Amino acid sequence: MSFLPAQLIRAKRDGAHLADADLRAFIAGVTDDSIPDYQIAAMLMAIFFRGLDDRELATWADAMTRSGDVIDLSMIKRAKVDKHSTGGVGDKISIPLAPAVAACGVAVPMVSGRGLGHTGGTLDKLESIPGFKVNLSIPRFTELVDQLGVCLIGQTERIAPADKRLYALRDVTGTIESVPLIASSIMSKKLAEGIDGLVIDCKVGTGAFMKTLDDARRLCAAMMAIGKAAGKRVSCVLTDMDAPIGHAIGNALEIAESIDVMRGGGPEDTRELTLALGAEMLLVGGVTTDAADARARIAAALDDGRALAVFRALVIAQGGDPATIDDHARLPKAEMHTTVVAPQGGTVARIDAEKLGVASVWLGAGRRTKEDAVDPAAGLMLEAQIGDAVDASQPLCVLHHPRGLAPDRLEQALRLTREAFVIQPDDPATTMRLGTAKSRVLEIIREPS
Amino acid sequence: MSFLPAQLIRAKRDGAHLADADLRAFIAGVTDDSIPDYQIAAMLMAIFFRGLDDRELATWADAMTRSGDVIDLSMIKRAKVDKHSTGGVGDKISIPLAPAVAACGVAVPMVSGRGLGHTGGTLDKLESIPGFKVNLSIPRFTELVDQLGVCLIGQTERIAPADKRLYALRDVTGTIESVPLIASSIMSKKLAEGIDGLVIDCKVGTGAFMKTLDDARRLCAAMMAIGKAAGKRVSCVLTDMDAPIGHAIGNALEIAESIDVMRGGGPEDTRELTLALGAEMLLVGGVTTDAADARARIAAALDDGRALAVFRALVIAQGGDPATIDDHARLPKAEMHTTVVAPQGGTVARIDAEKLGVASVWLGAGRRTKEDAVDPAAGLMLEAQIGDAVDASQPLCVLHHPRGLAPDRLEQALRLTREAFVIQPDDPATTMRLGTAKSRVLEIIREPS
Repeated sequence: MSFLPAQLIRAKRDGAHLADADLRAFIAGVTDDSIPDYQIAAMLMAIFFRGLDDRELATWADAMTRSGDVIDLSMIKRAKVDKHSTGGVGDKISIPLAPAVAACGVAVPMVSGRGLGHTGGTLDKLESIPGFKVNLSIPRFTELVDQLGVCLIGQTERIAPADKRLYALRDVTGTIESVPLIASSIMSKKLAEGIDGLVIDCKVGTGAFMKTLDDARRLCAAMMAIGKAAGKRVSCVLTDMDAPIGHAIGNALEIAESIDVMRGGGPEDTRELTLALGAEMLLVGGVTTDAADARARIAAALDDGRALAVFRALVIAQGGDPATIDDHARLPKAEMHTTVVAPQGGTVARIDAEKLGVASVWLGAGRRTKEDAVDPAAGLMLEAQIGDAVDASQPLCVLHHPRGLAPDRLEQALRLTREAFVIQPDDPATTMRLGTAKSRVLEIIREPS
Repeated sequence: MSFLPAQLIRAKRDGAHLADADLRAFIAGVTDDSIPDYQIAAMLMAIFFRGLDDRELATWADAMTRSGDVIDLSMIKRAKVDKHSTGGVGDKISIPLAPAVAACGVAVPMVSGRGLGHTGGTLDKLESIPGFKVNLSIPRFTELVDQLGVCLIGQTERIAPADKRLYALRDVTGTIESVPLIASSIMSKKLAEGIDGLVIDCKVGTGAFMKTLDDARRLCAAMMAIGKAAGKRVSCVLTDMDAPIGHAIGNALEIAESIDVMRGGGPEDTRELTLALGAEMLLVGGVTTDAADARARIAAALDDGRALAVFRALVIAQGGDPATIDDHARLPKAEMHTTVVAPQGGTVARIDAEKLGVASVWLGAGRRTKEDAVDPAAGLMLEAQIGDAVDASQPLCVLHHPRGLAPDRLEQALRLTREAFVIQPDDPATTMRLGTAKSRVLEIIREPS
């Protein structure tokens, strides 16, 4: 092995395919700090332009996975399958999904992140349940996955430390938007969970990181290549992220909506995503090989109370107050509601997810920087959906916020919310076209079994 | 101005043309250390892939020029023209050139570098003259340029400090080989000398940084665009660098050869390059508009002793021993001569400049790292030229070195020297083709006047 970081950077810059030993040595140098930031930055930019082939990508991601601890869940006999979402607005799907899948016999060891920017984080949502703890030890995490079939915790310092350093550098060097770098970042953290398989919810649209189906397909192909090389089954569900998911955006608001889904109700799109992703997890976990059967099993777990029972056990085991499940009023509540109404009559043609995501951050539901605290009660409730006919002055959205919210923050949130709703004056053709409910699921990519 | 380094990196990465204010802010951040190394590294790699257009390049180079002191030579009434070589083996041309041009009425304020790798540096050569000092103050430099028409010094810390930081980072991040980065590095240092015009000797060939005419033309176009934007006249002379220049490689050996040229003698190619580059400097300096006249003036200055008289005054003014000019034996002399002979009879088909350059480093004439000391007496004397017919065992090259040179270093030098000479067995057609003397000057690129 002829390892010299500058030589390796030059080779990648000129389009070479790097040797496995060199890629591993580079990631080792990232992990132990022996390669300086500037050489890593130059390599990341060279990868941005030149890419990594499937073999390089698999090696790079595997080296990242092994840069820290890999959780050993081998004592758990059931299939262990996780879901990862590339990030959406109002994306609370993990919360009804994980208990429903666990109720159907697949273990879900879920390590989640916090919200940043316009997308929320599962950990912030769970912490809006009074008492709920996400910082469990790995032995306790393993125990709960074994006993309940599910546990949801935050990342530890020891999961994929190479990704921590790479991600921090990518953030400040303009190297975020690279398919191999995104794919290896996601997969290294997930593979370190000790899973057998993974379902990826790849968001596509104006509110998502991937704006087009083609970009999303490329990212999915890269993640599936990494999974295959690691001997894990990976399926990808491409889902629409033009409009927010469900009616609720904000931590406690989304917990309440998630509980509705686990009671067999909730908004149609939220239930649909839970069924589609849950079915895919059962297929990946090998519980059934029939997609319709898998979907029916998840539906049954939502409808007959088994998903909610698992969730209740999970909340209790992780220190949360189970009374919140039966009484949403026990969840944190905002002091003030401010309603945005339709400026004119017509049909709701478009609801911009990203704008509403940013509005929720101004209300206190999310973070602008990693150091910000979140307000569990803050957020938005959508009162109209795409295709709805609305009269002038009819409520479109209710903003939940504290009395003391800085006036300029409220003003920003109101402005963004008004801009997010596009109302088209009535005309029969438009109404009919918009009235047709659009499925959130755009495409499913599976490995041949 | 919306200056955020990460945004700027992303913009360049995506092929944008950056605003002048942003480019200047970036170079200011490079100079005052407010932008960290990793962001500079990422920007350099983005520029490697995306380039800089002429306007961006001019702004970037101008910001680099102004990042430190710009020498003010405005009190000197004559035109002030410098020459820069992109680096060759045996390239001693500055030494006869600068006095010859000064003798013809153009002032030559020359700030030079030291040798690194297989190419030598003018400063090291001058310092082989006992007592010669290259670290003069800027006021003394200005005074000598005014009085003698020429002065040769080393770079100060305050000349283009942005280039110092960028160059050090490029060296370790695989971003050396970028036309706009090379062009701005060269031009920023030269423009900081306070010159009116510049002649660039752009080396092309196996022993040069630019391997092809096309690459060389691209680099020249970039340097000329920077010069034009700065209101300076720049001409480029593309010269062949397959074989070493002249017969001498090594510091004191090249001083002796340079003095031969200033006496109207010296190897044909060395004189030819001095005439071609000197004529170009007179044209750039506006002393004449006729190329043949310019060439004749330089030839006269070499042949009638005026160039040597200027050189003598320069040596005295810079503290050197002028007796060395009249008696080469007073220059440092090597203790040992080791001769490489032809392994067979035939015609010298090729002499590899880069190999002989590296051989001279092994002998002690150059540096492998910036910290190495150089041996002023060490080097090589070529005893045969391309096209020469040689007999078996006829001397090809004499290695000059100290008695105590480590045997492995001598062995490396001998091996490289043997490899550098390619002898073709005699056959009339080859001999005739090789026997035709090839001009070193490949192409001259001038701005329309």
